[in-house]
Amino acid sequence: MNLQRQPQAGHDNLFAHPFSPTALPQEQPAPQVVWLTGLSAAGKSTIVDSLNPLLGERGLRTCILDGDSLRTGLCRDLGFSAADREENVRRVAQVAALMADAGLTVLVALISPTRAARHHARSIIGIERFVEVFVDVPLAVAEARDPKGLYRRARQGEICGFTGVDSPYEPPVCPELHIHNDQVSACAAAQMIDHWLRQFRGL
Amino acid sequence: MNLQRQPQAGHDNLFAHPFSPTALPQEQPAPQVVWLTGLSAAGKSTIVDSLNPLLGERGLRTCILDGDSLRTGLCRDLGFSAADREENVRRVAQVAALMADAGLTVLVALISPTRAARHHARSIIGIERFVEVFVDVPLAVAEARDPKGLYRRARQGEICGFTGVDSPYEPPVCPELHIHNDQVSACAAAQMIDHWLRQFRGL
Repeated sequence: MNLQRQPQAGHDNLFAHPFSPTALPQEQPAPQVVWLTGLSAAGKSTIVDSLNPLLGERGLRTCILDGDSLRTGLCRDLGFSAADREENVRRVAQVAALMADAGLTVLVALISPTRAARHHARSIIGIERFVEVFVDVPLAVAEARDPKGLYRRARQGEICGFTGVDSPYEPPVCPELHIHNDQVSACAAAQMIDHWLRQFRGL
Repeated sequence: MNLQRQPQAGHDNLFAHPFSPTALPQEQPAPQVVWLTGLSAAGKSTIVDSLNPLLGERGLRTCILDGDSLRTGLCRDLGFSAADREENVRRVAQVAALMADAGLTVLVALISPTRAARHHARSIIGIERFVEVFVDVPLAVAEARDPKGLYRRARQGEICGFTGVDSPYEPPVCPELHIHNDQVSACAAAQMIDHWLRQFRGL
């Protein structure tokens, strides 16, 4: 038996162990990563909370990756500079890919303000299982909601680099789904996503 | 309805969304994180590859987190300095915790050379679901195996900070399982872990 293994491309001292693939139950469709992007207070997490039980009722095993929660754990070493925000999105995408590999349907709620970072996320996760959902509300609406008091603090200069105030949000050019979330309920938005997943990804 | 939420402890602009918990099937026991630590070439990944189908046969959904693979993805920005190694272990622990939260049994194969980093991992994952498995072979045995040619390169000075050569490995003081992996086959080691999980964690 030849025990010598070939290193991974570009990494001459890292070797991917050729693990036997974990067999997924045959009836399971390919896991998807539903990536909700939008301003703070656009309603991303609330939609996820409505969508999660809809998917669970259909027998899908799900996992939620929420921006705020991750920033106190996996990404707690990161701040809000442009570079740190890109790294934040990259890590969430890597974890989402691992979870989809493990057969979970992944629900991501993350501002992810730049097109470049979301494009990178799409490439990490794979276009066939990345579902970009633009949770769109006018800035004025998000700012009027302000459930966390963050817009107020950003306007007062207490928080710097806040998306929509003094840091840009780049709307998706061609998202899989565009939800005008000032015109529908979270429940209706969740049903739109659920319907889309069934229709276009056979989930 | 009071929309004001309280920030997370120590983070005055991060708010954990109060997601409804995902209901796990009642027959599922608490997910465990099996953390294999040991020298390079001790046999960690090979044991994981034997253990994974044993758990799958019992209906458990599993996920493998392998050190080398993660270093080309989630942890690709990290090197092999002491600080970067600690951060590497921390990130893997955070991801393992998220996966266990999602109901997966997680198999980690990671040198994780320091007691401090493994202790940190235990605290992130939770003592009730952390299973430290010391995959123990004498350095001379690992070096004689050297399936990746890394020990040879470390001895020749081509790789710096290599665990066991010019960087310390701190053996676990009180692991849940201690496997003398120069005396048993990977298959037998996997069965030992499987048996332990059933006996002590009801998995």
